Amino acid sequence: MANPTAAMLVIGDEILSGRTRDSNMHHLAGRLTEAGINLTEVRMVADDRMAIVEGVRALAREHDHLFTSGGIGPTHDDITADCVAEAMGASIDVRPDARAILQAHYDRQGIEMNEARLRMARIPEGAALIKNPISAAPGFTIGNVHVMAGIPAIFEAMVASVLPTISGGAPVLSESIRIDRAEGDIAARLNELAEEFTQLSFGSYPFRQNGEYGANVVIRGIDLQQINHAAAQLRAAFGEDAT
Amino acid sequence: MANPTAAMLVIGDEILSGRTRDSNMHHLAGRLTEAGINLTEVRMVADDRMAIVEGVRALAREHDHLFTSGGIGPTHDDITADCVAEAMGASIDVRPDARAILQAHYDRQGIEMNEARLRMARIPEGAALIKNPISAAPGFTIGNVHVMAGIPAIFEAMVASVLPTISGGAPVLSESIRIDRAEGDIAARLNELAEEFTQLSFGSYPFRQNGEYGANVVIRGIDLQQINHAAAQLRAAFGEDAT
Repeated sequence: MANPTAAMLVIGDEILSGRTRDSNMHHLAGRLTEAGINLTEVRMVADDRMAIVEGVRALAREHDHLFTSGGIGPTHDDITADCVAEAMGASIDVRPDARAILQAHYDRQGIEMNEARLRMARIPEGAALIKNPISAAPGFTIGNVHVMAGIPAIFEAMVASVLPTISGGAPVLSESIRIDRAEGDIAARLNELAEEFTQLSFGSYPFRQNGEYGANVVIRGIDLQQINHAAAQLRAAFGEDAT
Repeated sequence: MANPTAAMLVIGDEILSGRTRDSNMHHLAGRLTEAGINLTEVRMVADDRMAIVEGVRALAREHDHLFTSGGIGPTHDDITADCVAEAMGASIDVRPDARAILQAHYDRQGIEMNEARLRMARIPEGAALIKNPISAAPGFTIGNVHVMAGIPAIFEAMVASVLPTISGGAPVLSESIRIDRAEGDIAARLNELAEEFTQLSFGSYPFRQNGEYGANVVIRGIDLQQINHAAAQLRAAFGEDAT
């Protein structure tokens, strides 16, 4: 059975303007690989209603899961929750359960609730809340869409609490082989192996070190025996240049 | 007149598996902002023919420019050039001009040309070559699509040579104001400013420092006078908490 697929939608002007370097995509990619879920597409869009709604619709339809990051804070540019509700055909309003979580958090901290903060309790009807252990304002899951914060520490905590609720697949295993030959000298043999082992994927990542070319070849798949077999053949082909 | 728009397509299994953290998107975003070109969408896809062809078609159609990174090396998983040709309806083969560049480079280095290396001379008919000052294998521009390498040093060199050939827009200016108040206390005033200054964009980026909440507000636009005017109002609203 094929592993489930996932997509990610990264939301925020600051990413596209180059002001902020996104780190959530790389984090999620690693966690999904461990869970045996294939991340097959990522989109990054601005804080723009049409872009978010269309992105959510397309990616939720084409993948088993969609993860979003960003745009669920208290300011006017935080429109993700409303856009996801629109894309999924759900109504949205301040929800008592989310409001209670925020109110308790602010009461503990002596912060007043106001209209802006109340925006963070806007949750689509039928969605399940995702716990935010850092600043209380929850994310949510509606259908196959998991809506999370953009601040990396909060995003990562939300991923940790959502992933156990999702059925993963067989973990993807990999073996990395360093070959101290130029990629152009490795390519032909690698191509033969890729044609022989159709269940495995072969990635080649060139580098240059002390003026010499080399490549790290990564063999990935779910069958350890096949990976070992292919790795042995690759090592045999390049003798002492392969480590 | 509105500034031109751009999209980016990042191609590579290694990004989506979490093995490699992409840095090209952040680099391009910064350079485009300086050039007055609005990066409005980024997609990241695997080394998969359908995903690349569809990504190129959709993004080239919807934006003034499309920049791609990755998948133009010598190995079997380097299929970007062929996919871009397919998406743009162009024929593709080894081109004498690209082959001559590679041959001269390998001759200088005493490396033999082989079938794998020759793949890097596959360039769509009608495309203009993009110089690669590091490892010779060129990128190319076809229509509004600029195809570049994934290795960051080469990608960055190619961006530097392509951008001067593109008409930019008015440079986007910005002013950043630090406000030592929780974002929930800033949001209402910020929303009013966003409604008053419709030509500007207001981003709010919360942080927590020494247990205290704050936010950096970034005002962006092309009219410096408007930016200064909005910034002054924001500073006035938050007094000595704004710096």
